[in-house]
Amino acid sequence: MSEAYRRAGVDLEAGARAVDLIKEVAASALTPEVASGVGGFAGLYRLDDDRLLVAGTDGAGTKTEIARLTGRLNTIGIDLVAMSSNDVACTGAEPLFFLDCVVVGKVVPDAVASIVSGVAEGCRRAGCALLGGETAEHPGLLEPDEFDLTGTCVGLVEEGVLLDPSRVREGDALVGIASSGLHANGFSLVRSEVLPRLDLADEPEGLGRSLGDELLEPTAIYSPLIVELANRHLIRSAAHITGGGLPENLPRGLPGDLGARIRRDAWTVPPIFDLVQMTARAGHADMFATFNMGIGMVLACEKATADEVIERAGSAGHVAFSLGDVEAGRGVRGLMPE
Amino acid sequence: MSEAYRRAGVDLEAGARAVDLIKEVAASALTPEVASGVGGFAGLYRLDDDRLLVAGTDGAGTKTEIARLTGRLNTIGIDLVAMSSNDVACTGAEPLFFLDCVVVGKVVPDAVASIVSGVAEGCRRAGCALLGGETAEHPGLLEPDEFDLTGTCVGLVEEGVLLDPSRVREGDALVGIASSGLHANGFSLVRSEVLPRLDLADEPEGLGRSLGDELLEPTAIYSPLIVELANRHLIRSAAHITGGGLPENLPRGLPGDLGARIRRDAWTVPPIFDLVQMTARAGHADMFATFNMGIGMVLACEKATADEVIERAGSAGHVAFSLGDVEAGRGVRGLMPE
Repeated sequence: MSEAYRRAGVDLEAGARAVDLIKEVAASALTPEVASGVGGFAGLYRLDDDRLLVAGTDGAGTKTEIARLTGRLNTIGIDLVAMSSNDVACTGAEPLFFLDCVVVGKVVPDAVASIVSGVAEGCRRAGCALLGGETAEHPGLLEPDEFDLTGTCVGLVEEGVLLDPSRVREGDALVGIASSGLHANGFSLVRSEVLPRLDLADEPEGLGRSLGDELLEPTAIYSPLIVELANRHLIRSAAHITGGGLPENLPRGLPGDLGARIRRDAWTVPPIFDLVQMTARAGHADMFATFNMGIGMVLACEKATADEVIERAGSAGHVAFSLGDVEAGRGVRGLMPE
Repeated sequence: MSEAYRRAGVDLEAGARAVDLIKEVAASALTPEVASGVGGFAGLYRLDDDRLLVAGTDGAGTKTEIARLTGRLNTIGIDLVAMSSNDVACTGAEPLFFLDCVVVGKVVPDAVASIVSGVAEGCRRAGCALLGGETAEHPGLLEPDEFDLTGTCVGLVEEGVLLDPSRVREGDALVGIASSGLHANGFSLVRSEVLPRLDLADEPEGLGRSLGDELLEPTAIYSPLIVELANRHLIRSAAHITGGGLPENLPRGLPGDLGARIRRDAWTVPPIFDLVQMTARAGHADMFATFNMGIGMVLACEKATADEVIERAGSAGHVAFSLGDVEAGRGVRGLMPE
């Protein structure tokens, strides 16, 4: 339970209960082609004998508020594409196309175009097409300059390339790939606990830039790398670290009876997380349960291939490191001082 | 220009300017497989030599507010599925799957499950799977009981079955299919001009039920019918009548040099539209530019097949009628008294 996040108005337990209820009602709308439905990082739909369509949908969360408050609207679309294309990438699927939905309080054409230019940049980074989108005006429901972004990414994967948590074995290696910052999760906590105490124009020690610039840093897009690693059969599963952090998301890349042993000294938590923790007076466990803490993606692979995975991630411009091991027993261990 | 809608805070001209700017920025994120991008009813992506994936994204608009105010949350998801599956159907594509995104001010598990049960029902009506979805909590941005719904539908169509406005010829017949009411467009106008004057519990003369029940009537889902007609090669194009009404949407189903001659006596505008017009004191042109006025879909076909199209629509449970003809010259004629 995240106490700090509950203070921020986000109830993760209610969210989990909602997911359980949704699974029940969604079960009535399955077709035989659905290979995996609501609950995984992305949905799998059998296209033909050896190929699956993969789809994920997500929003940019209330990171949109930081874009609105700073007036910098042209990168939040990158976050939007990242959120669902990274989910789709967790299956090994190559993203084919993306569709965005921009809901605004009032349509200001230049503002909407600026938002969508970020979506287009995100699509270029993910290597997919911006196939369509929708702009809707909801006066009264949103203030004139408020907006909300959601989007959907559709990919394609051959069955032989599919990443699959059930293939992970005890003793496998876990490789962490660095995040580019907060990505697009935890912003309700930032808004309620940090923004009342710090100004977005401030340049806190250690950040080397303004708080606004740091918070707006676009979410890293991992799909080209993951697709390459999957096609080369170098990894067995991938877990996108989003809301709920490592404790909630890492196990989604593992079989139900296995867990993770993390080496906390494998990486240094970036300064922005320390700043948020101090300013929000949040606990260690709360921070790990809310933010990615510097790790955007966790890959599971055979021990023998871990070095090659780390090297290829580096060549693709990512910082990767040996994060820990897969061991018996559910859960993530080693995150907290024991 | 819709004066009544501008009073309601929705600026259709700004929306059109935004679409033009979006087309420019989106052009930078196309891939060779994109057969048709931003602008049509749905996006087309070439899957292989003879098949195309088709995707559409849309929201339920502020019809969500009527659901919230009446506390009836279990049908608005049908509207959500209808909006994008009807768009996808305009290509003749069979819908494969749908993903929803529910953004709430506060997660109340039973409320979210009720909303998603409607999404599941919509998927069953459209004949597609509910492949995935996302529930996000945006405290502060939305009030605790406010919510916003967006969704994406992905379909598949063989090239030989593809509906294509460019195939429509002068002299072709136009078949109208009745809407089930307001569908999910025009609700900002309803909220600003009707709700201050009428109570949702009122039972105005002619409706035979409460205003709330009438406004919440789920959007008709046409995809099974359109897919059948396309597979039988009985129609050449289809136009989903949404925001902007017949004047804006009907021409999207026609080649650029052709227009429509409508017979206004072909159908009776349902009482709810008269009630909205009177209560909102809106002009005739405003109403046609904002609402579907009783027509949810317009199909173009050879004159010789029009009777069979109407008959098959009837067998599928829809009310269809001969609406007019395709003639030279852009635009929609015959809607206004001349």
